[in-house]
Amino acid sequence: MADTTKIPYKIYLEESEMPQSWYNVRADMKNKPAPLLNPGTHQPMTAEELGGVFCEELVQQELDNETRFIEIPQEIRDFYKMYRPSPLVRAYCLEEKLQTPAKIYYKFEGNNTSGSHKLNSAIAQAYYAKKQGLKGVTTETGAGQWGTALSMACAYLGLDCKVYMVKVSYEQKPFRREVMRTYGASVVPSPSETTQIGRKILAEHPGTTGSLGCAISEAVEVAVSNPGYRYVLGSVLNQVLLHQSVIGLETKAALDKYGIKPDMIIGCAGGGSNLGGLISPFMGEKLRGEADYQIIAVEPASCPSFTRGVYAYDFCDTGMVCPLAKMYTLGCDFIPAPNHAGGLRYHGMSPVLSQLYADGLMEARAVPQTAVFEAAEQFARVEGILPAPESSHAIRVAIDEALKCKETGEEKTIVFGLTGTGYFDMVAYEKFHDGKMDDYIPTDEELTIYRAKLPKMD
Amino acid sequence: MADTTKIPYKIYLEESEMPQSWYNVRADMKNKPAPLLNPGTHQPMTAEELGGVFCEELVQQELDNETRFIEIPQEIRDFYKMYRPSPLVRAYCLEEKLQTPAKIYYKFEGNNTSGSHKLNSAIAQAYYAKKQGLKGVTTETGAGQWGTALSMACAYLGLDCKVYMVKVSYEQKPFRREVMRTYGASVVPSPSETTQIGRKILAEHPGTTGSLGCAISEAVEVAVSNPGYRYVLGSVLNQVLLHQSVIGLETKAALDKYGIKPDMIIGCAGGGSNLGGLISPFMGEKLRGEADYQIIAVEPASCPSFTRGVYAYDFCDTGMVCPLAKMYTLGCDFIPAPNHAGGLRYHGMSPVLSQLYADGLMEARAVPQTAVFEAAEQFARVEGILPAPESSHAIRVAIDEALKCKETGEEKTIVFGLTGTGYFDMVAYEKFHDGKMDDYIPTDEELTIYRAKLPKMD
Repeated sequence: MADTTKIPYKIYLEESEMPQSWYNVRADMKNKPAPLLNPGTHQPMTAEELGGVFCEELVQQELDNETRFIEIPQEIRDFYKMYRPSPLVRAYCLEEKLQTPAKIYYKFEGNNTSGSHKLNSAIAQAYYAKKQGLKGVTTETGAGQWGTALSMACAYLGLDCKVYMVKVSYEQKPFRREVMRTYGASVVPSPSETTQIGRKILAEHPGTTGSLGCAISEAVEVAVSNPGYRYVLGSVLNQVLLHQSVIGLETKAALDKYGIKPDMIIGCAGGGSNLGGLISPFMGEKLRGEADYQIIAVEPASCPSFTRGVYAYDFCDTGMVCPLAKMYTLGCDFIPAPNHAGGLRYHGMSPVLSQLYADGLMEARAVPQTAVFEAAEQFARVEGILPAPESSHAIRVAIDEALKCKETGEEKTIVFGLTGTGYFDMVAYEKFHDGKMDDYIPTDEELTIYRAKLPKMD
Repeated sequence: MADTTKIPYKIYLEESEMPQSWYNVRADMKNKPAPLLNPGTHQPMTAEELGGVFCEELVQQELDNETRFIEIPQEIRDFYKMYRPSPLVRAYCLEEKLQTPAKIYYKFEGNNTSGSHKLNSAIAQAYYAKKQGLKGVTTETGAGQWGTALSMACAYLGLDCKVYMVKVSYEQKPFRREVMRTYGASVVPSPSETTQIGRKILAEHPGTTGSLGCAISEAVEVAVSNPGYRYVLGSVLNQVLLHQSVIGLETKAALDKYGIKPDMIIGCAGGGSNLGGLISPFMGEKLRGEADYQIIAVEPASCPSFTRGVYAYDFCDTGMVCPLAKMYTLGCDFIPAPNHAGGLRYHGMSPVLSQLYADGLMEARAVPQTAVFEAAEQFARVEGILPAPESSHAIRVAIDEALKCKETGEEKTIVFGLTGTGYFDMVAYEKFHDGKMDDYIPTDEELTIYRAKLPKMD
């Protein structure tokens, strides 16, 4: 184990070294992400229109493609200090197990009760809602991490919190509901009978296990029909990637502290919040021509928006009540097989990441579920941390790349995002242990059907 | 929020500041803890006798009342670096919520997959088993934290691991089993039909929800009847307190770094592993007359060994196969009401802590369950971390003491041990939210019955 004397197992920044501003990668993008469109007129959504759904200041952040650094309000920085900086871990034990010359680092975002990076944006969104004098917020949640994060942020600030949780996750993760309840939130399995759109989806697809797209529609409906409420979202949106840039900024600061330059940055991608945040300062350098990095998005083979989707305008939600976003999408009606990475079961992808991918600035890989859990278990046994299924997608590719280095002898430096812990995913691990894991991959015929339903643009 | 500029929210030591040796508080005790006795002869257990049950080097540590510092082997220090140092957190948000002049700190041991401090001793015990060339180890677990910790340590070192889990916890925490399985352990609910003693207990107490005492008996039976196996224990023993001193040593180093002197140190106490570890260096100063601290053990009112037990020789296990230990005990047949702090459901208490308590060097308080969960929820909402029920006993008393400071205006510095997270305790939180929490406290008559069964000593 070389280097142990120089590079610690975990690099923690001092509080004084924590980012004071978020970094807005859009400012450095030559090709800006395409604007959100009004689903009726197909014209770019105005701040006024967006303000009916989102908090005012978040609308500004959503639309701001120019400001490179946006200051993190002191209240949010204080909250960050309760669970950040998160450690950048050198995976010495994994390297030894794999007998690879590669140097592997992971940014571990799971050491907070929400169990993931989601808290970084939850506190920001709740803060601006509070600042605007709102009564509460509504949202959807997949694996439950975003919902938990938002519940925590709302409890801290004294806001009401209504969460629509994708039914398959609600059933697989009964205790997640109780965690959110501990933080005072109300949680409804989606699709539900509590909204018009929920009732419609249930009538059309009885027995559906739900999707993030359905849950978003329900949460938006509740927000726009209850005075004093706004909708908040844990992924996809530009504002979320902005808040999540704290992950990448800390990662870069930690690497810089020890003079480490990564060759490769890997992250799982559902809506893109973690990956977008992790890569942002590195992508910024790449966009400005200051450095080059290989950047890899990893998605489930059962929900392959980057690798098998199309880059087109589509609805963000199944109910088609949200604005249209230009993104890599499988079609807003696409409901993936009930895989166990609830946080990656989204039909589309962040418009920012979609543009970067379209411009050839990053790659994507789709991995099957069983291979993901094999990587998860191997990682847990040597590195100690029980990873979330979502995060394990990144682990899978990091291990694959480290094994390639073993073949070639290359001493590449690999950084990946370990977004969260799998404590509430034990039903999935049980299926894996019992050999009952499903590796369903959609056929081309299926994908074609959903693709045909994309909105017609002029 | 005064002081924020000086004292960070979380104090992390550098790797180079981590303890290189464990501290053995027995070396500074004028009145040494009473020796373990052979249950047949009532003579002190010899190293040879103990060696049939425990690993050789651990027997040495168990019997060593003289060596003040025992070096932590490099392999264990490397493992510690994967999840340690743990943060010492300044509870700024809790202080503000309580409007107290008290300064509250907590040493948070929950940021590892076992979810608690148990890993500190698990890796040490597994290491010595491996070093001795053993095939595997057996153990019992209550809440499942110790079993998970041992599974992790065994997976890391390639040892077989058999866990007997108290039935009430096994049923309340179905996912704990799956975590242990991820780390390759086998888990059996106790009492079970797999051992002689298990079958006997089941015949005498059909429908029992089990206890740590029962589970210990089963694990010991399996260890002594299978070649190449030894028994390991997560609490009570002197060796465990020795390993757990890493908690207190880090705490003290972090406080010293900022020149903070605590007035009061609070920890939950089941078998005493966390409390014993947390207080050890402070108790050392107290024993040597260098400083004074108020030290408070907190136990469940349903299992009040310190506050309502007697200081006497008793069996460590229900099956009466283990050595006798002199400790505060409720009687080895005592099976507490099925409260939700599985890790505190033990009839006895560490002999070291028992001696210190008998000598008036520390206090103890018993708290009812509902009050504990009220404190847990209050803490979670302001500090973010969802605490384990066990740890929440310490939170309860820390809050009570901080509120007393509010009355008196005293600016006391309170340090408490936050031993772990409650992610696998959501059944308990659910009962609390639904108002179905039981506050059963044993009657004097009940306690008298069990006390009458204590072994007769010459």
